Amino acid sequence: MTDEATAFVPGHVTGFFSAHPADEPVQAGSRGAGVTLADGVEVTIRRPETPTAATTQHVELDGETVEMPPVERVLDALGVDAWVSAETSLPLGAGFGVSGAMALGTALAANRVFECGRSENELTALAHIAEVQSGTGLGDVVAQARGGVPIRLDPGAPGYGRLDGVPERPTVEYVTFGELSTEDVLSGDTTQLSAAGEDALARLVREPTLTQLMYASRRFAREAGLLTDEVTEAIRAVSDAGGEASMAMLGRTVFALETGLSDAGYDAVSCRTHPAGATLR
Amino acid sequence: MTDEATAFVPGHVTGFFSAHPADEPVQAGSRGAGVTLADGVEVTIRRPETPTAATTQHVELDGETVEMPPVERVLDALGVDAWVSAETSLPLGAGFGVSGAMALGTALAANRVFECGRSENELTALAHIAEVQSGTGLGDVVAQARGGVPIRLDPGAPGYGRLDGVPERPTVEYVTFGELSTEDVLSGDTTQLSAAGEDALARLVREPTLTQLMYASRRFAREAGLLTDEVTEAIRAVSDAGGEASMAMLGRTVFALETGLSDAGYDAVSCRTHPAGATLR
Repeated sequence: MTDEATAFVPGHVTGFFSAHPADEPVQAGSRGAGVTLADGVEVTIRRPETPTAATTQHVELDGETVEMPPVERVLDALGVDAWVSAETSLPLGAGFGVSGAMALGTALAANRVFECGRSENELTALAHIAEVQSGTGLGDVVAQARGGVPIRLDPGAPGYGRLDGVPERPTVEYVTFGELSTEDVLSGDTTQLSAAGEDALARLVREPTLTQLMYASRRFAREAGLLTDEVTEAIRAVSDAGGEASMAMLGRTVFALETGLSDAGYDAVSCRTHPAGATLR
Repeated sequence: MTDEATAFVPGHVTGFFSAHPADEPVQAGSRGAGVTLADGVEVTIRRPETPTAATTQHVELDGETVEMPPVERVLDALGVDAWVSAETSLPLGAGFGVSGAMALGTALAANRVFECGRSENELTALAHIAEVQSGTGLGDVVAQARGGVPIRLDPGAPGYGRLDGVPERPTVEYVTFGELSTEDVLSGDTTQLSAAGEDALARLVREPTLTQLMYASRRFAREAGLLTDEVTEAIRAVSDAGGEASMAMLGRTVFALETGLSDAGYDAVSCRTHPAGATLR
């Protein structure tokens, strides 16, 4: 028995996606592709020190108390009360999958602390369902459980969705201009967006390379109508400098392969693709 | 374009398994569970320097030229000629999945060097099929593509076999007393062995914990009739010292959680469970 456990969950940037609602959240989700990042979220779970009603659940992110419905749903599904503290260098609300990472890290670490006896697929499914029910994401959790450069062939949690991957582990750079609400985009009409996402996925499945991932992602960003001016400008600047960039879904964020953004004069963060899925420390 | 690429593939120790032959090698394989190891195999692929018939394919392991049918089958399936050089600290023929690692590492690295444009699932399938056709293994490749503590729920390559995992990343120790021929065991009558393996898998699926993995593995080793005297003695010694150990399938090898073997007085190698699947460097 242990009183504390920590999990690491990689960040995840989606390049393109299609939304697939379903009556059962375990089957709902998205198809699409992106990259997982060595920059991620460390989630630590502790047993409540003073088990009184007012303090049994407490969620902190970078030292600030936060409302994080996916995390609360994961704890409820496991039937445990815990203190959750998370740390990340990733920007929030900008398309890096921080809410999915917190849900998945909570599932993994709470399973150890409270000896819940769930398997990795079961914990991934719990976190995926919690994200879908909270409206905060559709595909980050399954990608973050896998690592690498994930291709989400089907929507849904393990047992429903199948994954594949692009067999490369590039360095990427990213720069963020601000937030974009996942809830707002996903609660609107996603018909055009999803048609563009299906087309992008078909392209990448035919040719599972980094070049195709970035090309299909740029095309998707244009067709889905989500580009903002500063994002368009940065993608064009990277392209003019001979690099490959696209927009992170969903955030006012641009990601590029290798040194694409700094070559174009941007002050970007560089990090490796993460080779592994979410894991206990 | 590149003239050289290197992939790392974790070692894999199987604790229990059932054999599932099939007409199509992509569907054949094993169900079972084990641990992947941070000790693994580095596989480097180079374009042949002198493209003459005598030198277009060449396979080396730790500096020695070797015959390695699964590697040759992978290169044939990709339609390329390459020089393959592999390095490992793992014992050979002793249940660590070195042949599977060489096949999978060859697939990943050759895909990059020769720009074959295959996905990770496709490369894993190629390596799995090559192992099955060579009679050198049934389940290592899919486990090595996943990493962690893999549970192989179904036999077969991606698209057929499903995987799950025990959500723990223990340190393990191992000691080897010698080789055991995978080909000899798998070409014999595997009825009793497979019945024991199915029983062990049902136990682990009900309770996906490290304790159950080790318990089910010990039970399997007894029931499958594969124990040798020195293996039995080492497992008992670890147990007497308060630890958890079992036999690596298929080798005269004992693996233990944490410091189990050294606590029992054995001169064992210690290594971490590997969090990631096979990956390009």
